[in-house]
Amino acid sequence: MNYKMVGRFIAQILSIEAVFMIPALILSLCRGEYGAVRGFLCALAVIAAVAGGLFLLCRKAPSAFYAKEGLVCVGISWVALSLMGGLPFYFSGEIPNFVDAFFEAVSGFTTTGASILPEVESLSGGILYWRSFTHWLGGMGVLVFLLAISPGKGKSGFTMHLLRAESPGPDVGKLVPRMRKTAAILYIIYIVMTIADLIFLLVGKMPLLDAVCTAFGTAGTGGFGTKNDSLAGYSPYIQNVTTVFMFLFGINFSCYYLLLLRQVKNVVKDEELRLYVGIVLGAIVLVALNVREYYDTLGETIRHAAFQVSSIITTTGFATTDFDLWPSFSKTILMGLMVVGACAGSTGGGLKCGRLLLLLKSLRRNTRQIIQPQRVEVVRNNGRVVPERVLDNANAYLAAYVVILLLSILLISVDNFSAEANVTAVLACFNNIGPGLAEVGPTCNFGGYSAFSKLVLSLDMLTGRLEIFPILVLFSKGAWKHR
Amino acid sequence: MNYKMVGRFIAQILSIEAVFMIPALILSLCRGEYGAVRGFLCALAVIAAVAGGLFLLCRKAPSAFYAKEGLVCVGISWVALSLMGGLPFYFSGEIPNFVDAFFEAVSGFTTTGASILPEVESLSGGILYWRSFTHWLGGMGVLVFLLAISPGKGKSGFTMHLLRAESPGPDVGKLVPRMRKTAAILYIIYIVMTIADLIFLLVGKMPLLDAVCTAFGTAGTGGFGTKNDSLAGYSPYIQNVTTVFMFLFGINFSCYYLLLLRQVKNVVKDEELRLYVGIVLGAIVLVALNVREYYDTLGETIRHAAFQVSSIITTTGFATTDFDLWPSFSKTILMGLMVVGACAGSTGGGLKCGRLLLLLKSLRRNTRQIIQPQRVEVVRNNGRVVPERVLDNANAYLAAYVVILLLSILLISVDNFSAEANVTAVLACFNNIGPGLAEVGPTCNFGGYSAFSKLVLSLDMLTGRLEIFPILVLFSKGAWKHR
Repeated sequence: MNYKMVGRFIAQILSIEAVFMIPALILSLCRGEYGAVRGFLCALAVIAAVAGGLFLLCRKAPSAFYAKEGLVCVGISWVALSLMGGLPFYFSGEIPNFVDAFFEAVSGFTTTGASILPEVESLSGGILYWRSFTHWLGGMGVLVFLLAISPGKGKSGFTMHLLRAESPGPDVGKLVPRMRKTAAILYIIYIVMTIADLIFLLVGKMPLLDAVCTAFGTAGTGGFGTKNDSLAGYSPYIQNVTTVFMFLFGINFSCYYLLLLRQVKNVVKDEELRLYVGIVLGAIVLVALNVREYYDTLGETIRHAAFQVSSIITTTGFATTDFDLWPSFSKTILMGLMVVGACAGSTGGGLKCGRLLLLLKSLRRNTRQIIQPQRVEVVRNNGRVVPERVLDNANAYLAAYVVILLLSILLISVDNFSAEANVTAVLACFNNIGPGLAEVGPTCNFGGYSAFSKLVLSLDMLTGRLEIFPILVLFSKGAWKHR
Repeated sequence: MNYKMVGRFIAQILSIEAVFMIPALILSLCRGEYGAVRGFLCALAVIAAVAGGLFLLCRKAPSAFYAKEGLVCVGISWVALSLMGGLPFYFSGEIPNFVDAFFEAVSGFTTTGASILPEVESLSGGILYWRSFTHWLGGMGVLVFLLAISPGKGKSGFTMHLLRAESPGPDVGKLVPRMRKTAAILYIIYIVMTIADLIFLLVGKMPLLDAVCTAFGTAGTGGFGTKNDSLAGYSPYIQNVTTVFMFLFGINFSCYYLLLLRQVKNVVKDEELRLYVGIVLGAIVLVALNVREYYDTLGETIRHAAFQVSSIITTTGFATTDFDLWPSFSKTILMGLMVVGACAGSTGGGLKCGRLLLLLKSLRRNTRQIIQPQRVEVVRNNGRVVPERVLDNANAYLAAYVVILLLSILLISVDNFSAEANVTAVLACFNNIGPGLAEVGPTCNFGGYSAFSKLVLSLDMLTGRLEIFPILVLFSKGAWKHR
């Protein structure tokens, strides 16, 4: 393990975080929110001390690195980001408990959107802005951002490992040969789409701060809002705009790049995209049929069904209605969507449609091979052969997923909440959704869990956002050995 | 597909079922239960007609067969067994609804033990006997029985396919080179252990019919009882005997064969057995600590904890207390045990400890390979290298398991039961346990579900008992093609 390199890397990441904290500080100053100003200043001081210390300690880092350094960098830097990102909440006194502040920051960066706050309308503007901004930064990934702006000479292997570890999906490809350019293209698409969302929201007469926070929460598929009832109080137009943008941010960003290159045919033929669209449309129809008696008009029914489906499958977690009151069938569909999640290479969480597709294809292959043992068959995706290693990893991912879910549910069950709450709390955190059902439903919050359970759920959020392995290797002896 | 061979095979299986129905008929006659006598006679007439018809139609079966014929034979014969096995319930009028009778028979043969009956004490003795006997026959498998008694010349490939498809576990080995002898040894061990259990129960002054039925339910890890409160009303001695025998029937039978050969060292070193014992002991300790305030003495606490843990991990489903009232932590442990299940090659259901071991080992291997991509590592079990194909299948099994669970939960959620009931109903049926939690808890039954949901759950029980693929191939086009 190349400790100095990891240390320097963490220092760089924290510096970026500090830079992004400045707009929130200025906003607080302008609004005269002095508690928040104090919070951001204290946080900046701590970050400066930690980052400065790390830079000094790790000046002469050897340049040797392996895949594990990439994984470890990603894992540790996300923990560090969250620890520091929670400081403004804590020092401002708006979330006076440190574990709660950490939980809220993890929930922000991992784009989960699960909150320990019973109500958010009393928070100051600067804190609300920072809370939602963590979604935006965490959505595309702060390491990807670092790559996009770094001078980027030489270390392409290292950056490839980083991008692989932070970007969601079973098989991360480069859009263009140079990693740095790939990262920059991703961020440009991301920024343009966020601004488009913001403009649509402002046209609907949403107040500026609310619109910015909602756009951040939508883009990162996070789900922190500025109102206690999430988006229920806004106009149908604003709800519909958000439905569409949540859906769009759940699509693999490489599809947008292909659209820019006018390769429309490749986008239309993309199997993952087709599965995603099919699941969304199917779920909207089934839910709408199931809840049609809960609302007055067909239009209202479809609006709520589409919003909730879009919010859950993209793992955003906004709500326009209390879906915990819906019938069992609709709630089960939502639980299924929680597990499936959005497309690989999007800002959404969950298992990912692409990984589901690989699992189903590999299952079909294995069933056929049981019928005809002598048959040798490859799995194809979009016409190309999928390497056995990728299939293997998708299967290992599922196994790790199941084991971690069961273990987490067991650990938090010591708090004696209902099984429905525990199961959906873990599902909602691990898949980075936000609200679950029952005691953690859309009108409730995670504040009732003990500090221990909050830490377990925080680890679940990180593990889910980073797709398990970068966190798993932190617990592996092999990762810490010198070679 | 060699249809005639499959047809003849089904006819043979049904003939065996008819023979086993005769003791139940005689018992009913002796007890003067004429409703039950009518039920068995009508059932025997239907079976004779169907089996006779099949024998006539499929006289000249070509002898060509492949793996898929084995799978299809197993799948269809289990459906046929259950259809015919439910007839006595239906014709006797004791379960007047045909879907309910089918559900009860499937639950019996698959050793699930989930019942649609709100109370069982009004059932006649003959029907109670038959209901529990289906557990015993289904536990070791009726096809294995057919192999054990068949003249067994030539077709060793076919019988190997059959045994593979019906026997639980990721990798079925032969105990001795000849399949027929393997099947016979398994059944002899099974019969001896059942008789031992029966003797222990009779020593505890349990009435004969109750003791026979309880021994059948324990041996097959089924769970149908003769009392409405399962085993809660019997003496602590009888409960403890049942705890021990449930545990013993959850162990791989090849361990007993090795003990007969005095290979004690190989048994003690068996990794699956160690995992199984470890999980059982760990779960008993955790549950006992968690529920210690629910019972008066330490002895009573441990007795109930050990009974419930043993009953759930072996997927038997007997109960001595209403564990639905236990705290969330204990209920979550039981839910985890439902998923894990007993050892491969036992009469228990679930994922199996052996398969869990393979999944964990393959996960550890994959994590290591992510850290060191150039490393090539094999997975070992009991010191021997596990073929990649077996690992592949364990992973495919898990993927199929997750997909089928989610789909089933979705389908039965149309009945609008609570999420806890739906999830645990599917878990309890698929893993062949019996009771779930909430509306399908140990003091409740499955009678409230609609006929549609009962059929879904029946299919889950069959799919779980046969370990997915024999049922999955029935839905695959490839299996029905002529070659």
